[in-house]
Parts: sequence; C-alpha cells; structure tokens
Amino acid sequence: MKTSIATVCLAGSLEEKMRAAAQAGFDGIEVFEPDLVASPLSPEQVADVAAELGLTLDLYQPFRDLEGVDEELFEQNLRRFEAKLALMRRMDLDLVLLCSNVATATRWDDASAVEQLQRAADLAAEYGVRIAYEALAWGRFVNTYEHAWDLVQTADRPNLGLCLDSFHILSRSGDVSGFSAIPGDRIFFVQMADAPHLLMDLLSWSRHHRTFPGEGSFDLVGFYRALMATGYDGPLSLEIFSDVYRQTDTPRTALAAMRSLQWLQEAAAAQDAEPAQPQGWDYAEVRAADPGEVAEILHALGFEDRGRHRTKDIRLFSAGDARVVTNGRPRSRGEDGSEIVGVGLQVPDPRATTDRARALQYPVAWRSNRSDEMVLRGVTAPDGSEFFISPLPEGVAAGTSTLPTPRTEPLWTGEFAPDRASGLDHRPTEARSEPGHSTEGPSSGESPLILGMDHVNLAQPWQWFDEGVLFYRALFGLEAQSMSEVASPQGLVRSQVMRNQDGSVRLALNMLPQVLEGSDEGRRHLRSAYPEHVAFLSTDVAEVARRAREEGLRFLPIPTNYYEDLDARFDLDEQLLDTLRSNDLMYDRDEHGEFLHFYTRTVGSVFFEVVERRGGYDGYGAHSAPVRLAAQYDIDRQ
Amino acid sequence: MKTSIATVCLAGSLEEKMRAAAQAGFDGIEVFEPDLVASPLSPEQVADVAAELGLTLDLYQPFRDLEGVDEELFEQNLRRFEAKLALMRRMDLDLVLLCSNVATATRWDDASAVEQLQRAADLAAEYGVRIAYEALAWGRFVNTYEHAWDLVQTADRPNLGLCLDSFHILSRSGDVSGFSAIPGDRIFFVQMADAPHLLMDLLSWSRHHRTFPGEGSFDLVGFYRALMATGYDGPLSLEIFSDVYRQTDTPRTALAAMRSLQWLQEAAAAQDAEPAQPQGWDYAEVRAADPGEVAEILHALGFEDRGRHRTKDIRLFSAGDARVVTNGRPRSRGEDGSEIVGVGLQVPDPRATTDRARALQYPVAWRSNRSDEMVLRGVTAPDGSEFFISPLPEGVAAGTSTLPTPRTEPLWTGEFAPDRASGLDHRPTEARSEPGHSTEGPSSGESPLILGMDHVNLAQPWQWFDEGVLFYRALFGLEAQSMSEVASPQGLVRSQVMRNQDGSVRLALNMLPQVLEGSDEGRRHLRSAYPEHVAFLSTDVAEVARRAREEGLRFLPIPTNYYEDLDARFDLDEQLLDTLRSNDLMYDRDEHGEFLHFYTRTVGSVFFEVVERRGGYDGYGAHSAPVRLAAQYDIDRQ
Repeated sequence: MKTSIATVCLAGSLEEKMRAAAQAGFDGIEVFEPDLVASPLSPEQVADVAAELGLTLDLYQPFRDLEGVDEELFEQNLRRFEAKLALMRRMDLDLVLLCSNVATATRWDDASAVEQLQRAADLAAEYGVRIAYEALAWGRFVNTYEHAWDLVQTADRPNLGLCLDSFHILSRSGDVSGFSAIPGDRIFFVQMADAPHLLMDLLSWSRHHRTFPGEGSFDLVGFYRALMATGYDGPLSLEIFSDVYRQTDTPRTALAAMRSLQWLQEAAAAQDAEPAQPQGWDYAEVRAADPGEVAEILHALGFEDRGRHRTKDIRLFSAGDARVVTNGRPRSRGEDGSEIVGVGLQVPDPRATTDRARALQYPVAWRSNRSDEMVLRGVTAPDGSEFFISPLPEGVAAGTSTLPTPRTEPLWTGEFAPDRASGLDHRPTEARSEPGHSTEGPSSGESPLILGMDHVNLAQPWQWFDEGVLFYRALFGLEAQSMSEVASPQGLVRSQVMRNQDGSVRLALNMLPQVLEGSDEGRRHLRSAYPEHVAFLSTDVAEVARRAREEGLRFLPIPTNYYEDLDARFDLDEQLLDTLRSNDLMYDRDEHGEFLHFYTRTVGSVFFEVVERRGGYDGYGAHSAPVRLAAQYDIDRQ
Repeated sequence: MKTSIATVCLAGSLEEKMRAAAQAGFDGIEVFEPDLVASPLSPEQVADVAAELGLTLDLYQPFRDLEGVDEELFEQNLRRFEAKLALMRRMDLDLVLLCSNVATATRWDDASAVEQLQRAADLAAEYGVRIAYEALAWGRFVNTYEHAWDLVQTADRPNLGLCLDSFHILSRSGDVSGFSAIPGDRIFFVQMADAPHLLMDLLSWSRHHRTFPGEGSFDLVGFYRALMATGYDGPLSLEIFSDVYRQTDTPRTALAAMRSLQWLQEAAAAQDAEPAQPQGWDYAEVRAADPGEVAEILHALGFEDRGRHRTKDIRLFSAGDARVVTNGRPRSRGEDGSEIVGVGLQVPDPRATTDRARALQYPVAWRSNRSDEMVLRGVTAPDGSEFFISPLPEGVAAGTSTLPTPRTEPLWTGEFAPDRASGLDHRPTEARSEPGHSTEGPSSGESPLILGMDHVNLAQPWQWFDEGVLFYRALFGLEAQSMSEVASPQGLVRSQVMRNQDGSVRLALNMLPQVLEGSDEGRRHLRSAYPEHVAFLSTDVAEVARRAREEGLRFLPIPTNYYEDLDARFDLDEQLLDTLRSNDLMYDRDEHGEFLHFYTRTVGSVFFEVVERRGGYDGYGAHSAPVRLAAQYDIDRQ
C-alpha cells in the first residue's frame, strides 16, 4: 500500500522533513500548510524537490471553516479557497483536505452545508482538484464520519469524497463497522494516528499527544481492517501532532513513522494481529566496572557462580531459570558502576524475529563469536539496550510458557565453566572465610527458591519512550498495559509495562523526570536514584531474604512507617507483618492474590528485586514504588 | 496570618522539605501521608524535627473514601481511620483532612453519610482530633463546598468542620459568595492553589498543573477576601500538585511558595489588589562580545549613538523614548554573542517597588556607581534577567502612560557623552565613508519614527516559568494574558504575555522546548533559534524599514509563500502587499486594527523588531511567530 506522512509529524524545515521522509522509504507526503508558508522554497521548488526525491505530494492540508456559514462569509471563504487551489496547481497537487467547520459555522442546516460543499467542489473541479472532507472530532456541527459521509453522499460530486482520520474517529469511540456503508473509492484519503488513553479535552489530546500507530492504545488494526474491506486503495498516511516528535531528530522520527506503518499492515494481515511472543527470559547481562560487587549480591540471593565463558571475559550466574551474565568491560556511554546492557529472550522462531527486526530496520546488536559457539542474534532497542534472541530451550513447546516448567538450560550455558585454578572467588569476604559454604552457593542441591526472572525495569529517556512501545510490540508482540505515574522525591516517573500474555515476560519502561535528563555532571549523579533492575520470581521470598541476610546482603532499607501504613490498609496478621518487617519485605494485595518482594541496594545504576506472587496477583506493588524511590533517594544523598 | 505548606508541594525527602519550609519562613506544614510513609523518620522524630525548626504540624492528609459506604466497609474504614488517629497522636497532630469519597461510595443518601461522619467525628474526639471535611471537585457524590457544608452542619459535631481548597472550588467555577453562610470557626483549614486555565479533566489538571497563588489564572484574591469575611483565623496553607515543582530545587521552591502567600495577602489587603504598575520602559541593556554589531543594527534602525558612559564601559543608543545600552563585558553565563541582560522600568514610586522586592526576598541586582551618578536599584528575575527600577521622567504624572508622550529623557542619560577624540565610530563601514551622515543617525532633526519600546521577549527555562509569572505580577503588578503555543521547527514554544493596563509595558515569556534545555554543547548552539528580543514601536514601520535597508541592515528574510498566504487570508490591496513584500514586513489584522512589523537578523542570541500598531490592534502577530522561528532556524542551519 502506498505510504505517506504529513510534514507536521516531523521536526525541522520543510526540506529536511521531505528528505527524511524519502530516506525512510515513504512514497509521498501531505503538505502541511504552515510548513509551506514558513518555507523559503516556492511551491514549484517543493514540487521539484519531491520529484528529485521520488516523493509524491498526496494532500494539501488543512483548509478550515469553509461551510455552514452565511452567503457573504461563504463568498470570502471561496475566494480564500481559490487562492489555495491556484497554489496547489503550481505544485501539481490535486487533493485538498477540508476540515469540518470548527470556528465560524453558526446556524446550521445540512441542506445549505451540502449546497456550499457542492459549490466548493465545482470550483475545485476547475483546478482539477479533489476535496477530502474530514469530520474533526470537535467540529462545531459535523464531528462524526457518518455525518460527513451523509453530506458528501448528498452533495454527489465526483471530486468530493471523505478523509478518514483514526484519531478523530477513535478518540470519540466511533464505530468503524460503519465503514462498510462507504464505497472505497469515495474515501479519498486516510490518516492514521494512535494515542495513549488520556483524560483530557479532545483538542488538547489531539494536538499534543498523538503517537504513531502501535505506540498508543487505539485499535488501529481493527480500523485498518474495516478500511480495507471498503476497497480503499489510496495512500495510508500518518498525521501525528506530538509534543515529543516535534522535537526529536528528523530522520530518526521518519524511520519510526515508517516502522509503525509496516507494523500496522503486517498486524492487520496476520491471523493474530501480533507476532509470536517470547515465552521466557534467556538471561540478563549486567556490565559493571567491578563485577565482584554484582557477584556478591547474586551469591547472597542464592545464585550459583557458573564460571567464566570459555573465550569472553564474562561470567554466568544462575538460580532456577534465572541467568545473569556479568561483563567487566566498561562501556563508552557508561559511567562507573553497573548497568543493564543486554537482555536475552526466548522466542519460538528466532529466525522469524531477526528477520522481522531487519525488515523494521532496527539496528543489529552483536557479540563476537567463535565458530564453535552459539551465535546470539540481537537487536538494539530505541533506548540503546540490546535484546538477544534465543530459541526455546529443548523440551519446551512453542505456545507454552517456559515458566514454571522444570529447569531447562539453554545450550549456550555450556560455554561457561567453573574457574580451575584461577583463584577467583566472587563470594563476599565473610563467605570466603567461613567454612561450610560451597562455591555453588547456598541453594545448591535443594529445590530452587528462585524460579526465574519475573520482570526487567529499564529507564527511558523521554525522547524514545513512544518509540520503545512500538519496538516491544512490533518486534516481540508484547502488549502495553495501562500507563501509571509514580511520585518520587525528584518528580513523577511515568511507567509503562509491556508483557506477554501469560506474564512470563514483563518489561517496565520508566520515563525519567525532566530534571534528570540534563547530561551535565551536576545532574548525572542523581540518575542513581532511578536505577534499572532485574526482578526474580521466587516460591518463598521470605526464605530467600533470610538466607541473603545471613550472607550479608545489603537490603534496601524500608521505613517502619511503611509497615504501620500497611497494617492500617490491610489489617495484616501479626506474624505476616513481623515477617515482612524483619526482612525488609514489601507487600501488596488485590482481589486476585498477594505480592511479597524485596529490593537490594543499588550498585552503579542496577539493583535486584525478588518477588513472590501468591494466587493470581498480577501487578508490581504500586504502593511500594514511591517508597522504594524515596529510600533510594535517601541513600543517594547520604 | 499563620502560613503553612503541604509537603507534597516540594521535591526531596520529608526532612528536606521541612527544613526548606522553615527556612522560607513558613509557620507550619501539612504532613502529606505518602511523604511520611516513605520517610525513615518515625512520627515522633518528625515532631522533634518540627519543634527544632519552629514548625507546627497543622494537618495530616489525606484520609480518603470513608463515608457513604455500607456498614461492613464502613467498619473497616473506621479501623483504618483509627490507626491514623493513633499515628497522629504520636506527632501531637490534631487535625486530619477527610476528602469526600471518590472511589467506594455506592448508593448515597445524605442522612447515612451524615451518620457516618458523626461516628467518625466521635471516634476522632477520643484522640483529641478534629476533622476537616473537603469536597473534592471530582467527588463521587460530594463535590461542592456547599454540599460538604450542608453535611457538616447537619452532623453538628464540634470537631467536624470544613476544609476549603481553592482549586476544588474555582476549577468548577464555584461561587465564593456562599462563604458568607459559613461561620469562620467552622472552617478548620484552607488550602490555596492557583492554576492556569486548561482544558482537561479536573483530576489531571489538579494533579499535574496546579501552581502557587499568583502564578495561574484563578481569582484567588476574591477567594481570599470572601474567606476573610467569614472570620476564619486558621492557617493559610498551600497545596500544590505540580509536575514542575516536584522536580525543582527544594529551598528555592519553598521561597517561591512563601512569596505567593505574601503576594496574596498584600493583594487582598490593598485597594487595587495589585501594586502600582510600571508606566514605561526606561531602557534595555544588551551585553555583547562585539558591541559594534549591535550598534550597527541600532544605527540602521535610526538610533542615535549617545556616546560612552562617563565611568563605565557601556554606550547609550536612543530613538524617541527607546533607549538601548550596550555592554562589552562578557558574562560568565554567556557564550559568545549578545544577550539581553537587563531591562529598566519606570515606576511611580521606585522606593515602594524596591521595598516590595526586598520583602518578597527577590535577589538584588546592582551596578557599581560613583557618588555623582544616579543609583539604579535592581532586582533579579527568576530566569536571571535583571530589572532596574527608575522614577517616571520629569513631567510625567503617575497614573498616565509615558507613551506616546513627548520625548522626556531620564536623568541618567546625562551620564553619557559623545566620544571626543576616541575615534570610536559604531556606524557601519558604509555609513562612515559616506558624507552626509551625521553621528546623530539618520533620524536626527525629524519627528522620530520610533516612539519607544513596545515589548521585550525573554526566553524562560521550564523550571522557572511559573515563578516568572508571579515575579512580574507580585513585583510590578503586570497582568498575565492567556497563554499561547507557537510551533517551531524544534518543538512547541509556550508563550505568556505579561503587561500593564495601557500596554506601554509588555513582556513575553517564552518557554523553550525540552530538547533545547540540555546544557551539553551539542544542543547549546541551537538556542540561537530561540533568541530574545526587543521590539520598538514606530509610527511608520515601512519608512523605518526603507531607511534601514539603505543603511545596509540585514533583515530576517521572510519567505514569499508567507505573502501569498497573507493575501489569501486578508485579500490585501496590491500596494500594501507590495510594501510588505519589498520590505520583509509581516502583517496581521483583527477587528480592532492592523499590525505591521519586521525583524532584524540575530546577533548572538538577540534580535530586534520594529512594530507599527494601527487602530486598536493589541496583539503580536500570532501568525508571524512560527514563520519567524522557521526563518531563524533556517539561518541557524546554514
């Protein structure tokens, strides 16, 4: 299908926008009038640049407040319209967007509006121009596509058709099944926009918070399928008003836009609308200036040190199906301390996932490999994190979760072997000097207390938050849960969970407050208050905590006030409350079940969490997050 | 009046908030429960810290979703409530905020709600606690103070009274005249919050966009006066949920908060609600690495070079009542290039203004002076700009505008004298070599084409935008006009005009897009696309432009497309359009009159504008701003 993008979607000058759109592979553009008015390029030059770039000029937009007015004003409007028709002819542009009247329509009757639309269409015909009439969601009298279609049908002019904009329809919970009443050739243009569900007036929502398809919450796949059923064969275009994308790098945004249309078309064509989801975590990779610190924490949590990789300077730690790889090489972007640099996901068909990543033009991530080693294929997420794609472990059938299946090790773990005579020992000092602790860690030989990874929490710069949502949806088929906001001592943190259906893969994307975005040194250190983390799923978090404390783990300290509030809220029995309090555990409960969890102190910008889900509890402890952020802030300031 | 502040207004830990509140001079605080829950301080320690700081603990808040529920849930709620009452006793805190039920009220009748309020009050009485019942604007059943008062009155318990929150009342356009029905001693607490007028749901508006009094659009003076008439003598407190202030420097925000209460009380006490406004511009000061560049522009605009200051390395340029001082010293904050560093305002009573600045604790700005020179008293605005305060020129009566009165020079201009034999000549090279141009500039001897300064446009970092609004209102009595948003190639620019009544002093505060806020080198250069500027008022802008072009002024080039669009919009006569086009003039028209103006190229981060207002035109050319920003961006990228 022919693709198009409105120039208003992108930052920069008109020419920069055109070049970025062409580079990203768009077939055409919508010329957004204010971009043309502010451009030093004449209309003829715009047409020349478009021709040079192989772009078509698909739509001139918007023309406003034409119809439903008295005769005197209408004649002025026609004059104004004719000036634009003449302008369009200079660019060989033959389709204009006419928005339903917002500002100047007074006493309305459909019959006179139809008559005015007819006169406008007849004038446009003299210039060889077609009109796509669009019902704005906040149009004064016409604000549904059904009403717009009724007027267009009655006006009955061959060069007067509809423009369907997904935002204007879906923001009002419009019903796309009505598309079936419209012949496809009377739909002259289609604009696709997504948006998160927000409670605000339609106009502000539309002008500031649209996103590219797949980055928001609208059912655009349903919209698109209903559209296709009409036989529409015009361009599939994007019209996004976004406070974010107005600011971001133009070529990058154009590429993100193109990916969204690719996703949309594929999703609509597929049986299931989304690609096959990952079914489990393969591993998490933590890069650390001092990997020993991370090793000490993992040891205390009951992880076994599986030794060094046979050729690379990385180590593997495991507990149940949870695997953490530590990497001692500092990264150019990194400061001192630790950070999560890679995550491994187990997918039913790795080749299909990497093919999809390449088709969507996501940058490849890679690690050098020897011929006898398993090759991990990887892809770089918008925030720079790297995701590596592995097959399901042997014995796990596609379509089933890898949790809580019995421990099945991926093949690559065989590339790690315990140190022979290296003398390296990553256990904490106390553990080393104490007899009775084997190098396998405290959990060896028992049924594992830790089953696997529960979720991974990644910090997102504001510029790439929306792009991130599409990345996880388009590439891995993860579903966006509703957005939440968490108060921290340094501002609100927006949090978006992306997960697979059975909850075995959950990613929390946290957008940093603006004040932490500055890259100057004075602020950078504060980022340690917004670390990233890996959470492990346990069958008995209190026991994990008890053993970890014996091993000298430094817990994130939880204030006593928290437990008093907990008791007031839940009326807990004394023994449970005591268990929680004495282990720095946090607690939540909902109608499905209970949630117990604790956090470790932060190393660099990484910490770990251990969680226990009882019954059908499916959340993350919403009340805990602000307390955790405050505790981390306190430590940061000490 | 006793002042208080809710801890949620400030960033940081509970203890940091308390220390900042005490430092800023608050008498007490509201303990916001989530701040206490997340604090490592026990309730007893909170009370100790408060005592040490001389702060009272005025309110514990919020307690939610108590009333209007079935008996079983109500008993759970009472248990939950009693836990908090016990907690409050440990802090000697005797007032709790009870919010009207939002989440759990189901079948409502006033009688049973009253009965439940009575039972809660009786329980609270056992702990010596009073209840302040507040109608949330989005309360499920109780969402007006009138309804809350009705319930409180019927319940008739001595320890059950009202909390009045200005946001919850004014956001719903509530009528404060109803306060007169309430005895002051039944109002237990008052929370003041302002907010800009926004179109969004009440909850999001309230949780994200409140501001301190005087920084928004609500009539808080009217609210406060109605409150005082009831005889209320409890604390005047602030409860602000702000995405911005949650992030900003805690002591600074606390001080901004205190200023807002000072302003509010003074404004309510005064006859006119606002301080006497400035009646004209004294001058603008531009600091420039190369002052010659600025001098060339001013010369071309018809400014006279009035020479060097007798002791300081600054020069004065004037045209009509417009005065620009250029300063060659680079500033530490400054990069190369020019910036607006100071603005002079003429006020009826300079001493009153400087006293007010001191009382509001705005930092003093100063310039060193010799004993025989006029002392300029100054104050530093939140964004770092310096404002200097001068008396009205002789012959100008207080209460009248200094524009368009005949030219009356302030006394300090006498401290400047033409260069004797210094050989300095700031006119452009062409002018120097041409005979017939006197050093007085091209306008000398004629009636001046430039009357004075029209407006000054200052860029504002997002952190200080709201504070800025209060600064200009509280110190100078300027009024905030409605906010607008201008699209630029690098994002939306929020713009807020502050002005005096007759329009002789107008300041536009422009908030930069987030992407330009980063302080790293890669972004800093882009700031030149968001320069600050001084606009001069002319009687004949076309003639100023014609002469300036002869003098070699580099205009900001306006694209041809702009004029075509202008013609389509306004149907201009050919001669006017030709005048505009040939002089790079921009144009606007409204029901009151016409606006013609042009811009110079940018030097460093400063440019100049010349405007002509015909008839009663009172705006700034809203359609011009995006075209200007795009043109400046284009030049920046060349």
